[in-house]
Amino acid sequence: MAFLLTILGSSSALPTSERHPAAHVLNIHERFFLIDCGEGTQMQLRKYRIRMGKLHHIFISHVHGDHVFGIYGLLSSLSLLGREYPLHVYAPSHFGALLRQHLADFDIHLGYELVFHPLHHSRSEKIYEDDRLMVETLPLKHRVPALGFLFREKPRPRNIFPEMIKKYNMSLKQIRQVKDGNDLELDNGTRVPFDELTYSKHVPVSYAYCSDTVYTESFLGKIRNVDVLYHEATYDGAMEKRAAETGHSTSLQAATLARKAGAGKLILGHFSARYKQIEPLVEEAQTIFPQTVAAVEGETYEVLPGGLPGSLSG
Amino acid sequence: MAFLLTILGSSSALPTSERHPAAHVLNIHERFFLIDCGEGTQMQLRKYRIRMGKLHHIFISHVHGDHVFGIYGLLSSLSLLGREYPLHVYAPSHFGALLRQHLADFDIHLGYELVFHPLHHSRSEKIYEDDRLMVETLPLKHRVPALGFLFREKPRPRNIFPEMIKKYNMSLKQIRQVKDGNDLELDNGTRVPFDELTYSKHVPVSYAYCSDTVYTESFLGKIRNVDVLYHEATYDGAMEKRAAETGHSTSLQAATLARKAGAGKLILGHFSARYKQIEPLVEEAQTIFPQTVAAVEGETYEVLPGGLPGSLSG
Repeated sequence: MAFLLTILGSSSALPTSERHPAAHVLNIHERFFLIDCGEGTQMQLRKYRIRMGKLHHIFISHVHGDHVFGIYGLLSSLSLLGREYPLHVYAPSHFGALLRQHLADFDIHLGYELVFHPLHHSRSEKIYEDDRLMVETLPLKHRVPALGFLFREKPRPRNIFPEMIKKYNMSLKQIRQVKDGNDLELDNGTRVPFDELTYSKHVPVSYAYCSDTVYTESFLGKIRNVDVLYHEATYDGAMEKRAAETGHSTSLQAATLARKAGAGKLILGHFSARYKQIEPLVEEAQTIFPQTVAAVEGETYEVLPGGLPGSLSG
Repeated sequence: MAFLLTILGSSSALPTSERHPAAHVLNIHERFFLIDCGEGTQMQLRKYRIRMGKLHHIFISHVHGDHVFGIYGLLSSLSLLGREYPLHVYAPSHFGALLRQHLADFDIHLGYELVFHPLHHSRSEKIYEDDRLMVETLPLKHRVPALGFLFREKPRPRNIFPEMIKKYNMSLKQIRQVKDGNDLELDNGTRVPFDELTYSKHVPVSYAYCSDTVYTESFLGKIRNVDVLYHEATYDGAMEKRAAETGHSTSLQAATLARKAGAGKLILGHFSARYKQIEPLVEEAQTIFPQTVAAVEGETYEVLPGGLPGSLSG
């Protein structure tokens, strides 16, 4: 049981022979989530042996081709593979009509239900929740409406110390009450606090995906102490003006946000094709935020409390 | 100087880890032509080191995703790479509006002129011609309007035997007249025939692309003696009914057409993902048309008079 991130694409608009358009897969306790779906995502899923059929939720950050052009082929392939389960697509609201029109234009008839979730782009909202996980949007600033996504594990129910059950000779009813989060009321009227009776080894982790955007602190409160922050770094620090003009960030800006947020680890990505070598961008970011690494396609990262495993710490 | 075919994609609608969606590149004496543009074509071009900037003409057989979904990313990348030359796209007529709408929907502003050539789908027409080459359409029969493409080299101008120039003491004017294809008129009124005066070592070659289609002989006259025929073989011979239902062909049908056309060589492609091994489809086709091979992605085939080089002859 783990919280795993696999990066399938880390290029910006122009892919290179090493870098593909945007796509991230999260495997959170065997529930699979896709973030963005650039051209070739279905081929990258096959290459890295991630079973497409396991995807039930696709989150699209914004409606630019390098984040979306793989979705038509993926939706079509899922249908050809015999999918019957509904598939949920979350994207800026205007994408819903575009998607349906495009499927119709291309004679694609899906054999499963496509559930479209229109997202507001001006404010954060909770868009997904299950017993383990919550997903919230982060309003980004780009040339078109754009959203980041914050995946936050929920704390697991705490366990009662076996010795406490014995000590207070707790009944099944009392055990249930404590498991529901209550203090223990003894027959003599005294209360034993919940925290004293219970323990948890589980530390919930979180992952934030921020691409594409200019530098903005508008959602800083939301990503406070995030364990792993993926932030676009289309340009190096010297290109700050160009970054602002095109709605993008520099590696220094990504590092600044990671430092201010108190992130555990920063993964840089969405690199401009102009950079044959990424190391200089990482090194420059590390001057501000040492726990910075560059996205490596096909690599699976375990998101742990406080960041990534030590072997990956830049 | 050669007539070279590189196959970038040979899957049918569902790509596999070995086979990509449809895309063929022809390099005809350093003029580059793309036929179909499935998802991932721009990455395949990079992988096989074919410079995108050299493409000036893209031919789309029909408006199904596995033949088209790579075009948006490719057009966008060409613009990001600074292209200024016009790009010509030939496709069934209704694709023009779809393409322009899609580029607008995705905020793609091309820095070069996109020239769309709408194609009739019910009859053959000449759609491209230069000093070396002619391209004609072949009306296919599929679930949507679909066209094959016949690339036919033109004969090169014949040369005059030097000994004939000496023998008849030809003037510059007479040489020009003969080069224009006329017989030589001597002062005494006799004519020396053009064929007797001239020679050519060049044998023009031809390539036909037929995908997607059911078995049809409607364009058989057009592809008579074609040197290399690429024909879809989505299914094996036992699946003839399924092939007809889905608008596709079997390997046996492809071979039958190649035999009737007197083709030099048949390349099978557009294989269904159900076939892990392609050899049985090739072997079955060879019982009807021995000069059959299966498409191999990334391989560059030289189209020669009568087929492909011997080393590739199945």
